[in-house]
Amino acid sequence: MTVKQQAAGVMNQDRIERSSRAPTPMNFTLGIDFGTNSARALIVSCADGREVATAVAPYPSGREGILLDPKNRHLARQRPGDYLTSMQACVTQAVAAAARVKGFQPSRIVGIGVDATGSSPIPVDARNHALGQQARWRNDLSAQCWLWKDHTGWQEAAAITEAARARRPEYVAATGGTYSSEWWWSKLWHCLKVSPRVFAAAESWVELADWVPSLLAGVTSPRDVVRGICAAGHKAIFSDAWGGLPDEEFLRSLDPALASLRSRLYTRAVDGNTRAGELGPEWAQRLGLAPGTPIAIGQFDVHYGAVACDVREGTLVKVIGTSTCDCAVVKSGSITPLIPGICGAVPGSILPGWIGVEAGQSAVGDIFKWWVEEICGGNADTHAALAQQAAAQPPGASGLVALDWHNGNRTILVDPLLTGTLVGLTLSTTRAEIYRALIEGTAFGARVIIERLREHGVAIRRIVCAGGIAEKNPLLMQIYADVTGCMLDVSASGQACALGSAIGAAVAAGVHKDFPAAQKAMARVRRNAYRPRPRQRKIYHAIYAEYRRLHDAFAANGPSADLSAVMKHLLEIQRSSQ
Amino acid sequence: MTVKQQAAGVMNQDRIERSSRAPTPMNFTLGIDFGTNSARALIVSCADGREVATAVAPYPSGREGILLDPKNRHLARQRPGDYLTSMQACVTQAVAAAARVKGFQPSRIVGIGVDATGSSPIPVDARNHALGQQARWRNDLSAQCWLWKDHTGWQEAAAITEAARARRPEYVAATGGTYSSEWWWSKLWHCLKVSPRVFAAAESWVELADWVPSLLAGVTSPRDVVRGICAAGHKAIFSDAWGGLPDEEFLRSLDPALASLRSRLYTRAVDGNTRAGELGPEWAQRLGLAPGTPIAIGQFDVHYGAVACDVREGTLVKVIGTSTCDCAVVKSGSITPLIPGICGAVPGSILPGWIGVEAGQSAVGDIFKWWVEEICGGNADTHAALAQQAAAQPPGASGLVALDWHNGNRTILVDPLLTGTLVGLTLSTTRAEIYRALIEGTAFGARVIIERLREHGVAIRRIVCAGGIAEKNPLLMQIYADVTGCMLDVSASGQACALGSAIGAAVAAGVHKDFPAAQKAMARVRRNAYRPRPRQRKIYHAIYAEYRRLHDAFAANGPSADLSAVMKHLLEIQRSSQ
Repeated sequence: MTVKQQAAGVMNQDRIERSSRAPTPMNFTLGIDFGTNSARALIVSCADGREVATAVAPYPSGREGILLDPKNRHLARQRPGDYLTSMQACVTQAVAAAARVKGFQPSRIVGIGVDATGSSPIPVDARNHALGQQARWRNDLSAQCWLWKDHTGWQEAAAITEAARARRPEYVAATGGTYSSEWWWSKLWHCLKVSPRVFAAAESWVELADWVPSLLAGVTSPRDVVRGICAAGHKAIFSDAWGGLPDEEFLRSLDPALASLRSRLYTRAVDGNTRAGELGPEWAQRLGLAPGTPIAIGQFDVHYGAVACDVREGTLVKVIGTSTCDCAVVKSGSITPLIPGICGAVPGSILPGWIGVEAGQSAVGDIFKWWVEEICGGNADTHAALAQQAAAQPPGASGLVALDWHNGNRTILVDPLLTGTLVGLTLSTTRAEIYRALIEGTAFGARVIIERLREHGVAIRRIVCAGGIAEKNPLLMQIYADVTGCMLDVSASGQACALGSAIGAAVAAGVHKDFPAAQKAMARVRRNAYRPRPRQRKIYHAIYAEYRRLHDAFAANGPSADLSAVMKHLLEIQRSSQ
Repeated sequence: MTVKQQAAGVMNQDRIERSSRAPTPMNFTLGIDFGTNSARALIVSCADGREVATAVAPYPSGREGILLDPKNRHLARQRPGDYLTSMQACVTQAVAAAARVKGFQPSRIVGIGVDATGSSPIPVDARNHALGQQARWRNDLSAQCWLWKDHTGWQEAAAITEAARARRPEYVAATGGTYSSEWWWSKLWHCLKVSPRVFAAAESWVELADWVPSLLAGVTSPRDVVRGICAAGHKAIFSDAWGGLPDEEFLRSLDPALASLRSRLYTRAVDGNTRAGELGPEWAQRLGLAPGTPIAIGQFDVHYGAVACDVREGTLVKVIGTSTCDCAVVKSGSITPLIPGICGAVPGSILPGWIGVEAGQSAVGDIFKWWVEEICGGNADTHAALAQQAAAQPPGASGLVALDWHNGNRTILVDPLLTGTLVGLTLSTTRAEIYRALIEGTAFGARVIIERLREHGVAIRRIVCAGGIAEKNPLLMQIYADVTGCMLDVSASGQACALGSAIGAAVAAGVHKDFPAAQKAMARVRRNAYRPRPRQRKIYHAIYAEYRRLHDAFAANGPSADLSAVMKHLLEIQRSSQ
């Protein structure tokens, strides 16, 4: 394992010194972000959200931290122990780096926040130990953490959708009418089917976003783990409206063993106004932090990322990385109860007091990586060269359109059994043209989501983008502005998710009175970074019509479609673009 | 220019010596084949068709002999002078190589045959000189030979189709109901529109397959060029049924200048029972052959290729190279007059006394070359590596299906404005899987053609394959056998088109009494080279259903299609193949 670390050389020390002379004591919070391939720690000032230090630690196991099965492309697992190893590494490195900054002391870290990918459920024993950490289960893929992008439960997802539509329509109403293979119950049920011994050995299951805070707080029974409404509401069909998790009768209709498990899970899930606990002695020592430090409730990475992007009513936050997650908040009662195909609408899941709305695209950066590395056989230099060539092409010049379904479609079709498609290939098509068409495909996918949200009453006046691709790929960002017709803001933090966790930690510590106040002080956004260009917007509007025609034609249960003009329209657009 | 040459080391000299002791004098004929990128000369024994010598000479100009326009991917032209330069090079090299073979003398070459790509029309002046050979027109792309795969006249093709359907349905009945942008009138009319000065300077236009024999014969006026029914009937709407070329009134309705040109073209077109002429003194000297040597009528490369593959009733010949041409012969009156989407049915175009039926695929080898070189950035080694990896994959394992329309669709849709498509891409898809899917796509395209022919009464009991890919790509050949369910024979000559020309030359010279007799002696086929395998055939049958669904959905004027299960079916096939 390699650990990168950096002190925030750009930090405005003068500002911190002034803060230290102010009546408010100089406080810091720690955000810990569990991404798909690595953990990262971020220490920020509660006064203004500026980074004091950050460190990242890749997960040591598998391929870039992920355990794969060459025989089943749907499978993606992680070793629970990796999270702890990497957390200890990156937190201690960040604390050591921060110690070189004037005015910082570890004791001034007054709160800890944790965010993680999800739904990433972990089977645990009665002591809240992950089964995958134990020698007996170490080599059993089913005993590990079931990573968010594991789609092995696609058949179970379809069965849950069918059962819910028939008998509990309210269970899928808030998740767009379809239950996903990426979510909690699909994974637990699939484990029950393929690995009944693991299922039987699990006292309970805990989301990664809840499990880490519970370990930090020294919780030694899964019954005492404080569960966040973010994971519970978006992925586990938890709602106070029907008394928590799905009822036993419903679960029994799927499998009696799921009904038996229910009582060993949880009956309460809380929003960001409730803490996950306080730092216990074991992890205080391991991390070099003060015992008793408040720990914010765990949330999904992009939900805390949205907080750091100053999410509020009228704002759509897009966290663009290997995949894309979209987050928005709306007033209770302001939207149609069911937004077809949208992943979820859960009260309190992003900000207390607001309904959190989540959507997403199953693969974005992963698609470009696949094209550059797997197909073109290239590396980072190839990526840069293709981006440069692609940037020189006018929109429409390639005659191509791509469906961005290489990892299925999360929103609005909620179907992992859809695949990527390229239309418009000729003997003159170049790899750079396809690279650009793949970017455009993800932009069109983003537009489909925006249109669906707006149609159902979610106001989108501003879009704020965060994530590695939003920062590093100006070509993609300009295409997104041109395709969506929206002005794009960009997170001014390279660690938006961790920053959001740190903001949550500042609220948990009482440094700021509530989330809006904490966001005002700590959220950091670069306004109007990319503007849509009228000519490009018009061309993309025409290509989008063809994308949408293909999208609807290939969608399951889609209407019968007339595609006879698609290729000709693309060629017309190509000619007029030259 | 580089010239490859080889003496036929494998020739059975004993056999030739026995022949020379036999009463029949030992005769040879010369076949000259004008392919897309090079000319080749082949000297064979009239007794048994065995190669005595062969040589190939690439065309010196442009990119692999082709003049391109980076702004217009439809454009493909060739310098007329290149044909003569390359012909002289390869013929003299072949004659020199043959001179080292016992029993051969140049004077024993008793006939010459010429085949060429087409429709490849050349504008000529009153002396039968190509405009493109003249200093004044040397840099004008419109004054060169309009290569078969030039699609710039696609709008004119559509207008001719529309006009003929409305006013002269018989004109397109024999060409499947649609006139192609690859054909004579589309090209001439497009020249008239974009280069009226070139059009005005042309006394006449001559097909490459007719022009070269006319030069060899010393013809100094386009009026005296003997025209073959093969090019005239398949590409120029020539038929004795309506008095030759399209009537003046029809042409005037397209453009009066086309009607004026008509009288400067031709009124007679002949089959293989008529010679193009006898070798004149100029070219006799340049080639080192006897003046007065009979010259067979020029035909398209694949038509003579079909002759060398022993085409007869019940046989489909596939010449598989950069593109694929399909040829069959049927008895007059035995087929439905109109086979929708089939390029042509012309009496005498392949064998005198039979209706020649032609179909084809606009790009085959070109697609694999594009994938390997342009997209994967590879070379011949890459090609071999991808073929090896692809050969290890079971059918269906990739979950992919490709539409092989990277250069449009010639048969059965007759539409250059269709484009290549890939469906089924995932983040696990490899370049070798796509390479295989592209091969499979062309195999499915081949099956569409076979089904269309059979539906309309063309018996296909045997398939004989020739061309570079049929010889060199056993993976492709086995896939074709599995996809079509047919036993595949393979031409035993690596130069089937040139061998066919040499057979035509033997008939022209009177060495054999007619084509069947000449084929019996000289055609060379390896029987049952590839057999369909039942398991693979079944899987491909299932994938073909999805190919056909996509094919029909994207086809212009295709019915409204339900594609909602395509991706799922492909994934089911993928799972069951593993």
